[in-house]
Amino acid sequence: MNGHVNGTNGLSHSKSSRLIVDSPYVKCDGTIIESKFSYRKNQFEKTAEGLKVIPKEYEYTFRTQLRTKRTGLLLVGLGGNNGSTAVGSIFANKKNMSWRTKDGVQSANYFGSVTQASTIHLGWDGRQQIHVPFNEIIPILSPNDLIIDGWDINNQNLYEAMIRAKVFEPELQEKLRPYMEPIVPMPSIYYPDFIASNQGDRANNVISGNKKEEHLEHIRRDIRQFKMKHDLGEFLHNYISVTPLILLVQHNVFVGGDDFKSGQTKIKSALVDFLVSSGLKPESIVSYNHLGNNDGKNLSEAKQFRSKEISKSSVVDDMVQANKILYPTGRNPDHCIVIKYVPFVGDSKRAMDEYICRLVLSMVSLLLKAPVVPAGTPVSNAFMRQFASLAKLISTLAGVVSDADMQIEFFTNLATPL
Amino acid sequence: MNGHVNGTNGLSHSKSSRLIVDSPYVKCDGTIIESKFSYRKNQFEKTAEGLKVIPKEYEYTFRTQLRTKRTGLLLVGLGGNNGSTAVGSIFANKKNMSWRTKDGVQSANYFGSVTQASTIHLGWDGRQQIHVPFNEIIPILSPNDLIIDGWDINNQNLYEAMIRAKVFEPELQEKLRPYMEPIVPMPSIYYPDFIASNQGDRANNVISGNKKEEHLEHIRRDIRQFKMKHDLGEFLHNYISVTPLILLVQHNVFVGGDDFKSGQTKIKSALVDFLVSSGLKPESIVSYNHLGNNDGKNLSEAKQFRSKEISKSSVVDDMVQANKILYPTGRNPDHCIVIKYVPFVGDSKRAMDEYICRLVLSMVSLLLKAPVVPAGTPVSNAFMRQFASLAKLISTLAGVVSDADMQIEFFTNLATPL
Amino acid sequence: MNGHVNGTNGLSHSKSSRLIVDSPYVKCDGTIIESKFSYRKNQFEKTAEGLKVIPKEYEYTFRTQLRTKRTGLLLVGLGGNNGSTAVGSIFANKKNMSWRTKDGVQSANYFGSVTQASTIHLGWDGRQQIHVPFNEIIPILSPNDLIIDGWDINNQNLYEAMIRAKVFEPELQEKLRPYMEPIVPMPSIYYPDFIASNQGDRANNVISGNKKEEHLEHIRRDIRQFKMKHDLGEFLHNYISVTPLILLVQHNVFVGGDDFKSGQTKIKSALVDFLVSSGLKPESIVSYNHLGNNDGKNLSEAKQFRSKEISKSSVVDDMVQANKILYPTGRNPDHCIVIKYVPFVGDSKRAMDEYICRLVLSMVSLLLKAPVVPAGTPVSNAFMRQFASLAKLISTLAGVVSDADMQIEFFTNLATPL
Amino acid sequence: MNGHVNGTNGLSHSKSSRLIVDSPYVKCDGTIIESKFSYRKNQFEKTAEGLKVIPKEYEYTFRTQLRTKRTGLLLVGLGGNNGSTAVGSIFANKKNMSWRTKDGVQSANYFGSVTQASTIHLGWDGRQQIHVPFNEIIPILSPNDLIIDGWDINNQNLYEAMIRAKVFEPELQEKLRPYMEPIVPMPSIYYPDFIASNQGDRANNVISGNKKEEHLEHIRRDIRQFKMKHDLGEFLHNYISVTPLILLVQHNVFVGGDDFKSGQTKIKSALVDFLVSSGLKPESIVSYNHLGNNDGKNLSEAKQFRSKEISKSSVVDDMVQANKILYPTGRNPDHCIVIKYVPFVGDSKRAMDEYICRLVLSMVSLLLKAPVVPAGTPVSNAFMRQFASLAKLISTLAGVVSDADMQIEFFTNLATPL
Repeated sequence: MNGHVNGTNGLSHSKSSRLIVDSPYVKCDGTIIESKFSYRKNQFEKTAEGLKVIPKEYEYTFRTQLRTKRTGLLLVGLGGNNGSTAVGSIFANKKNMSWRTKDGVQSANYFGSVTQASTIHLGWDGRQQIHVPFNEIIPILSPNDLIIDGWDINNQNLYEAMIRAKVFEPELQEKLRPYMEPIVPMPSIYYPDFIASNQGDRANNVISGNKKEEHLEHIRRDIRQFKMKHDLGEFLHNYISVTPLILLVQHNVFVGGDDFKSGQTKIKSALVDFLVSSGLKPESIVSYNHLGNNDGKNLSEAKQFRSKEISKSSVVDDMVQANKILYPTGRNPDHCIVIKYVPFVGDSKRAMDEYICRLVLSMVSLLLKAPVVPAGTPVSNAFMRQFASLAKLISTLAGVVSDADMQIEFFTNLATPL
Repeated sequence: MNGHVNGTNGLSHSKSSRLIVDSPYVKCDGTIIESKFSYRKNQFEKTAEGLKVIPKEYEYTFRTQLRTKRTGLLLVGLGGNNGSTAVGSIFANKKNMSWRTKDGVQSANYFGSVTQASTIHLGWDGRQQIHVPFNEIIPILSPNDLIIDGWDINNQNLYEAMIRAKVFEPELQEKLRPYMEPIVPMPSIYYPDFIASNQGDRANNVISGNKKEEHLEHIRRDIRQFKMKHDLGEFLHNYISVTPLILLVQHNVFVGGDDFKSGQTKIKSALVDFLVSSGLKPESIVSYNHLGNNDGKNLSEAKQFRSKEISKSSVVDDMVQANKILYPTGRNPDHCIVIKYVPFVGDSKRAMDEYICRLVLSMVSLLLKAPVVPAGTPVSNAFMRQFASLAKLISTLAGVVSDADMQIEFFTNLATPL
Repeated sequence: MNGHVNGTNGLSHSKSSRLIVDSPYVKCDGTIIESKFSYRKNQFEKTAEGLKVIPKEYEYTFRTQLRTKRTGLLLVGLGGNNGSTAVGSIFANKKNMSWRTKDGVQSANYFGSVTQASTIHLGWDGRQQIHVPFNEIIPILSPNDLIIDGWDINNQNLYEAMIRAKVFEPELQEKLRPYMEPIVPMPSIYYPDFIASNQGDRANNVISGNKKEEHLEHIRRDIRQFKMKHDLGEFLHNYISVTPLILLVQHNVFVGGDDFKSGQTKIKSALVDFLVSSGLKPESIVSYNHLGNNDGKNLSEAKQFRSKEISKSSVVDDMVQANKILYPTGRNPDHCIVIKYVPFVGDSKRAMDEYICRLVLSMVSLLLKAPVVPAGTPVSNAFMRQFASLAKLISTLAGVVSDADMQIEFFTNLATPL
Repeated sequence: MNGHVNGTNGLSHSKSSRLIVDSPYVKCDGTIIESKFSYRKNQFEKTAEGLKVIPKEYEYTFRTQLRTKRTGLLLVGLGGNNGSTAVGSIFANKKNMSWRTKDGVQSANYFGSVTQASTIHLGWDGRQQIHVPFNEIIPILSPNDLIIDGWDINNQNLYEAMIRAKVFEPELQEKLRPYMEPIVPMPSIYYPDFIASNQGDRANNVISGNKKEEHLEHIRRDIRQFKMKHDLGEFLHNYISVTPLILLVQHNVFVGGDDFKSGQTKIKSALVDFLVSSGLKPESIVSYNHLGNNDGKNLSEAKQFRSKEISKSSVVDDMVQANKILYPTGRNPDHCIVIKYVPFVGDSKRAMDEYICRLVLSMVSLLLKAPVVPAGTPVSNAFMRQFASLAKLISTLAGVVSDADMQIEFFTNLATPL
C-alpha cells in the first residue's frame, strides 16, 4: 500500500449525479453503495512499567441503500411546542410556503439542520476548496419524506397547539391551518411521576386504565397500526421525555435520546470543549435560563427541574474527568444551573451563561494567525479543527489512535466487530 | 488486515514512563520514535458526468527525537505587552513563583497552553475513558526550556516594560524584577510604514542607517550571534508584525504567523465554525473591541486597523466559501469590526460580538441529549466532536476522505510526498 | 403664612371631573385655570470672603386654557422611519386598531409617552398614595388631536414608507393602508451639506431652484397654507435634523430640538446622572451602536456621524463640569462613541454601553434598605428621588435654592420675570 | 412677596468659607445655622364630585450645629465583609494610604459616598453653572470622624476578617494591619432563627444565656459603656440584619434600615423609576445574582433568601401601585429573583437584570435632544431631572403640590408639624 492506491470502479451514486467516487474500496451497483473501512481503536493493558496502548485495526463493510425507505416518526408530546413546530416546519417546507413579516417576506428552509444544511470539506482541487453538502455525499432521508404521528396528553389539534406555542408568524399560521387542523394526537400514557403535577389540567387525552401492561399493549398497537397504515419498511420511533428507558433497551429499540438538544446545551458543549481544549480551566460556570412556555411550567416543579439539571451537568463532569492537568483532584468547578418559569417571555427562551476561567501566566496563543503555507494546504482557522489536527499529529507521531478516529463508533456501534 | 493487527515492539518512550505503545507501525530505540502513517487525501477530476473524487493514500515515516534540542526564540517586539508577559510567565514558572492577590495566593502554571495543559482522548480501557496530556504522548519542548531574546524599538528593560504592561500583580512584579531587569531588547529595525506613526515617540532603540540591505545584515548578525552564544542546534524565530513576509518565504524560514491568536479571534473561529456546522446561517456579525494598551494605540491609526480588520475578516470569508447551501450567492453576511483605543481599560481588553443567525422553520436539534449506548462507547457531548464524527461516518460510507484526515497536512506539509 | 393655608375656590377642572383643587392660589372659571406660583432662584456675587448666594423669589401667574386648540405638526422627514411610525401610531390609536402577532393580539396604546402614560405623585390620603396621570391634572393635547403633515426629499406615500421602515407587523400595515396611502410628503428643501451624500439617490421630491431665499419663501408658503387649510389657531412646527437653527432663533420660533431623544441617549442620561449623583466616578464610557435603517446609512457618512457624536457627548461634558470632587482637573473620562451601519438588523437598533467607575474604598450604600417610618411618610425607593430629596433638605438647611426648584425654568422660560 | 426678596444677614457658615448665604430666612451666629422653610403638602378629601386636593403650607425652623458632635457607630456584624470593609476604608482615608495595584498606585478616597462626593446644583452665575459639594453647603459628619465598634458572632479580629473578605489588595491589607488587628468584635446575640443555620460553625463569639431580657440588658450595657468610654454626645446605632425592629421603634431609636443598599437594588430602583416615568411598561423583570462570600452562603438557606427576595420585590410593587394607566388591573409584572451561592466568585458579586417593556405604537421621545434656549437656562440632559421639572410644572399649573416638594418629609419627619 506504499504510494497511492490505484484501482477504479467509479460509479456515481449522488442523487444529483455530481459526485463520482473512484476508489477500490467503494462499489455502487445503482441500488447499494458498499464501502470498506478500516476502523482503528486502542486497547489498553496495565503493566508494571506503565499503561500499554495497543492500537487495533478492524475492517468493516458498510452497505448504504440509495433509495431511502418510507420512514415514520412517532413523537411523544406531538401537541407540545416542539411537536407542533416540527410538524409545521415540515409542511411549510414541503409546500414551499412564504409569508410576510415586518422584515419582509420569508420562505421556509431547513437552515439549522445538520443533514440538510451542512457541508463536508473534501479537499483542494488545485484551484479551490471543495465542500459538499452532507446529503449529496450519500442519500439522507429528508424531513419532507417523514410520515409523522404521535401521542399527547392534550387533545388540541395541531393548529390550536401551534397558536398556543407562539412560534410561527400569524400569516404562516393561517397558511398551515388546513394541514395542521386535521391532525389530533393519539391518547397518551399519563404517568404523573414523569410529568410535573402542574400539567394535570392539560391531561384530557389519556389512555384509560392503570395497568402498565395494558398501557404498553395499547402503545404497541398504536405503533403496529401506524406501520401498517403507512406501509413502513423501516421504523424510527423517538421516544422523548416520558419513556421508561430501561424497558426500551431490553427490547432492542433504538433510543435517540431523551430530549431535543437545542440552544444552550448545544452551545455549552461547544464552549466547554473549546475552553478545556485550549487548556483554559473553567473554575465556575453559572447558567441562568428562563422561559414561559409549557416546558418552563413543567420544569418549575422540583422533580422535573432536578432531572434537567442532571442532564445539563454531565457536560461538566466529562470535562473534569478528561483533564487531570487542569483538575488534578477531580473536584468539579462550581456549577450552578437555574431554570425559571416567566410566563411573559413565552417561547422566546433566555439563556445566560457565565464562564470564569483561571488563567495564570499562561501562553494562550499557541496557534498563530495567518500562517504562511503553500496554496492548497488545508489551513483551518476554526479552532476545534486545528485542535483535532494537532491531536491527530501528536497521536500519529506516537503511533496511537486518537479521538477523531474513534468517535465514529458512537454513530455505528462498531464496538462489537461484525 | 481483517481482524486486529498483532505485531509488538512495545517500547516505552514517554518521559514519565507511563505510556508504552505496542504496534507494528511504531519503533522506539531510546533516542528516536519512528512511526509509519498512511495519509489519505482526495484528488479531483472534472468530468462530463460530474466531479470525480479519487481518494489517494500515501505512506509516511515520521521520526521524532526523544530529547528536545536547545531551542531559541527571538521575538520582534520583546518589550511590548506580549513580549514582557511571555518572558515573565516563563520565569514565574521556571522559579515556581507564588504571590499574594486579594483572592489568596496564586502559583504560576501553564494553563492556557495547548501543549502543556491539554489532553488527548485515547479510548476506553474497560472501566474508564483514557485521556493523556499532549506532552506525555510525545516529547514536546517546554516553554521553560526556551532561550529567549529579541528586538524592540524601545530600550526599556523588561522590568520597566512589565510595569507599563499592567498585566502582573505588584508582588509578582517584584519577584520577577531580578530576572527581568537585566534583559534589554536589541535595537530594532524601525520602518514607520509598518508601525503606526503614533508609536514614533517610543522609538529610541533603532538600528541606524536607512538601507534595507544593511538592516537585514544587522538582523542576520544578531541571529548568528544568538545561535552561537547559546549553542543552538535548532532555530525558531518568530517574526511577528513587522516582517516583510515575502522575504522570509524566499529564504525558506518557518513563519509561524503574523500575530499571536488570542481571545476574540480564537473564540470567533470556534463559534462561527459551530454555527455554520450546525447549519445555522450567520446573517450579521458585529465585533466591538476596545483596549488601552500600546497595541490599541497602534491600531487606532487607520492603516494598522485596516490590516487587523482584514485578518479578522478571513474567518468569515472562509465560512461563506464553505457552504453554498447557506450562502448560495456567495454574498458575505454583514460583517463589521470595530477596534477602539480607550486608555483607561489598559491591558484588560473588551470584546463584544453579536452573531445574528437566520433560522427559518429549522430543525436545530438533530443530535439528541443523553443517548443510551453500551458502556465504553465513545459518546461525546461536545458538539464539534459529534459533528466531526458524523462527517467522518458520512464520508466513510461514501468512500471519500474528509476533513479530519486531511487537516494534519497543515502541521506537517505532507502535500509533497517524501 | 404660618400654619396651613385655608382659602377655598375648589373648581374642578379635570376632564374626567375627578380632581378638584381647593387652594387660594388657584382659580378656574370653566375656561381657564389661573395659578399663582412663587419661583425661587439663587443669584450669585463674587466677594472677597467667598461666593455670596442670594436666593430671590419671583411671583408668577399662569393661565392654562381648558380646551386645547387645534394644533398642527409639520415634520421634516415625514417619510422617514420616525415620521411614518409617528403617523401610523396615531392612526392606530385613533381607530382603536388591534392586530395579530405570534404572541397574540395586540392593541394600540400610548405607553412610552410621558404625557399620556405617566403619573404624578400627589401624596398620601391617610390610606394610600395618590398618583394621578399627567393629563388628568391639567389638560394636555393628545397626539390623537394633532393635525400632521410634513416634507420629505423622497416622494413615497406613507404606506410605502411604513413598509420600508419595517416597524409595524404585517397585519397592522394592511389595516393602516387606507389611512397612510393617501399621505404624500410635500417636496423638501434638499441641501446635501446637511444630509449624507449617500442619501442622494432617494432625493426625488425636492424644491427646485438653488436660492436660499426662494426656498425659505416656499416653506413659509407651505406653512401658511397648512394653517389656513386646517384653521389652526396655535402652531407648533418641529423642525428636525436639517434646519438652519440659527435662522429660527432669530425669528422667535420655538425649536423643540434637533432630533427625537430615544433609547440609548435617554437611558445614558439617566445612568450617568445616577452614577455621578451616587458619587461614583465614571472613568470610561464606551457606546457601541449599530442599526440598519436609513438613519444608519445616513450616519455612516463621516460628517453626519460627527454631528451625532457631539450631541451624545454633551451628556458627559455636563457631568464633568458638575462635580469637581470626582473630576478635579476638569479632564473628561475616556468617552468613545461608535455608530455603525449594519443593513441586516434593519430598524431594530442595537446599543451596548459600558460604564467603568472607579470606586476606591468607598461607602456606596449611604441610603439603607427598608427604613422604618410612620405610615404615610413618602418613602421613595427610587434612587434619583431620594437624591433629589436629600439635596433639597441640604439646601433648605442652608437656606439656598437648589435644582428641583429651578428646573421648571427650562420648560417655562421664567428667567425673565413677566 | 412680589419681585425678589431683599433682606441680608449674609453670614458665612461653610467650613471652607466659600459659601455665604444672603437671605432673610437664614441666620448664622457662628455656632448654629437657623433656616426657615415653608413645607407644602396636599390634603385629600373624597367628595361626591371627585377627589378634592387641598394644598397646605407649614412653616418650619431648622437649626443645624456648625460643629458636628462626636458620633459613635455600632455595627451588628462588625467582622463580616461589610463591617471589615467599612472600618478598613475609614482607616485608609484617615491615614491617607496609597498602595500598588497592577494598574498603578491607588489612593484612598470617598468616591461613592453621596455626602462626601456629590454636588448640588445652585444655579447659573451669568457665566457658568454653580455646583457645590454637599458637605460645603452645610457641615456633614465625615466618616473619618466616626468612632466605630460593634458585635459579631465570630471572634476573628478585623485583620483576619478583612483577609477573609477578599476586598482589599494585598499591599493595602498589610498597611491596614496595625490598625485592624487590635479590633475584635464584642460577643453578639446569636438567634439562629435570624441567621442561616449554615452560619452555625462561625458562631464562636456569642453572649451566653438564653433569656431575651438578659441579652437585651447585655447589649444595653455594651452601648452605655461605648458612649461613656468615648464621651459621645450624640448616638447613632445602626442595627443591621438581625434586629427585632419592632422593639427599636417602641424605644424611639432611629433605625436606618435593615441592610446597606448597594449595587443591584440601587440601580434597579433607578431603572424601574426611569422606565415607568417614561411611560414604558415593564412586563417582566428577571434578576439573577450570584456571589461567593458569607452573605451568599447565608442567603443560600431558604428562609434568609425569602426575606431578601421580599425586600427586593417591593420596588416593583410600588411601581404597579403608582401607575394605573400602565397597570390598570393592579396585576404585577412577572418578577423573578434568583440568588445563588457560587464560592469561586468570592466577594465580586454578579448581577444580571433583564427588563422587558411592552411598547406598542408609542411615542417614546417626547423630550427632544439639544433644545435651543437662552444662555443660563438650567437645561438638564438627565432624564429624571427633566421628568421632575415637568411634573413640577404640571402640578404648578394645577396649583397642587407634587413629589419633589414632599420627599423632604422622608428625611425630616415633617409629617407632624413642630
